Amino acid sequence: MSENSKYVTYGSCGCGSCGASKEITGCRFSLSPMSDKYIDIILGALGKVDTSKVWKETDKLSTIYRGKRIHVLDAVKGLFIHSYDENVHTTLEATLSKGCPGDTDADSFLAEDDVLVNEESIKDIHFKTTCKISLYPMGVSNYMGYIAKVVNHAIDMGIYVRSAHYVTILEGDIHELFHFFNEAAEYCNKELSHYIMQITLSVNSPTAE
Amino acid sequence: MSENSKYVTYGSCGCGSCGASKEITGCRFSLSPMSDKYIDIILGALGKVDTSKVWKETDKLSTIYRGKRIHVLDAVKGLFIHSYDENVHTTLEATLSKGCPGDTDADSFLAEDDVLVNEESIKDIHFKTTCKISLYPMGVSNYMGYIAKVVNHAIDMGIYVRSAHYVTILEGDIHELFHFFNEAAEYCNKELSHYIMQITLSVNSPTAE
Repeated sequence: MSENSKYVTYGSCGCGSCGASKEITGCRFSLSPMSDKYIDIILGALGKVDTSKVWKETDKLSTIYRGKRIHVLDAVKGLFIHSYDENVHTTLEATLSKGCPGDTDADSFLAEDDVLVNEESIKDIHFKTTCKISLYPMGVSNYMGYIAKVVNHAIDMGIYVRSAHYVTILEGDIHELFHFFNEAAEYCNKELSHYIMQITLSVNSPTAE
Repeated sequence: MSENSKYVTYGSCGCGSCGASKEITGCRFSLSPMSDKYIDIILGALGKVDTSKVWKETDKLSTIYRGKRIHVLDAVKGLFIHSYDENVHTTLEATLSKGCPGDTDADSFLAEDDVLVNEESIKDIHFKTTCKISLYPMGVSNYMGYIAKVVNHAIDMGIYVRSAHYVTILEGDIHELFHFFNEAAEYCNKELSHYIMQITLSVNSPTAE
């Protein structure tokens, strides 16, 4: 490693010595409506979500919500449900992460209570969603065991479709899927110091299985 | 772990004991043209790519190419470049992976030579691409060191923009980016038994930085 300051050094960070002292979960996501109206759909959905309990930022590639796990998932779920249009094939690519040794306490907001601010406006909207998910438990050699545990929980919930190259395929009502993400993240939170869940949601795909 | 066969067991696989004996790299990717013509754009690009040196499969969520690293990257690069339309905001989400303990020798094809079959048809097509990338070195506690090494290589190449939450942002000509992916993957291949590179490419985004 050069000492030239143009380089990054993550050297002082090791697994488990997370740079953020708080319980900060983050989700970086990109919404892709396959439509000429994609800007209206994205801005419309972003405008309907209540983000009062998360820290947020939008850049050229994605939007990030950071805060307490349940509020981050509530906001991402709100965003996706408010973007739903039965005539548009839309995907959401999301990276849910907690415990990165390079993380900091900055750019976050931890609401004191657990009241979900988006649930009321989305709870009656239901649609079938296909999903692929990959879990990356970092810094441990026995990571396949944690992955199996999470996949088996999806099997128990009845949303598992099959294992495929590099991912697990899930399918269910959008609320069931987010219920699973929250439980899987809660399990990872307890068992691992750093994990990433890479999730893609897809609705109205024209491709048959 | 229940003995009920409905469950998955990755128990016999540990890090480094990869289930695949060959040098199989795989890439699972989803192309998202934000346009009413997305089906034509996707099928048009898939039709122009020479996939004679990779194994391929398309499902509802993504397409997978598997084989020798250079041929997999050549095919994904060909696909993305052939999908390019200067009037369409398009993203490609890709999971590049090698060495998963749950992987098998099946569903792959290892071409004997290193001649890139797509390069000739794409080498004169150039456009600026924004990229986010995350590297996950699995099964090792000092993973941040490997990540820093790869990010610093991007800095040396002049394609690094900034570090952001959960990702590194890169920008450059599409050929430069794929040159970097290949070198980063070659490095990971040498140093790690199992790694994942999660990549998103974006062109013609209407969002200013």
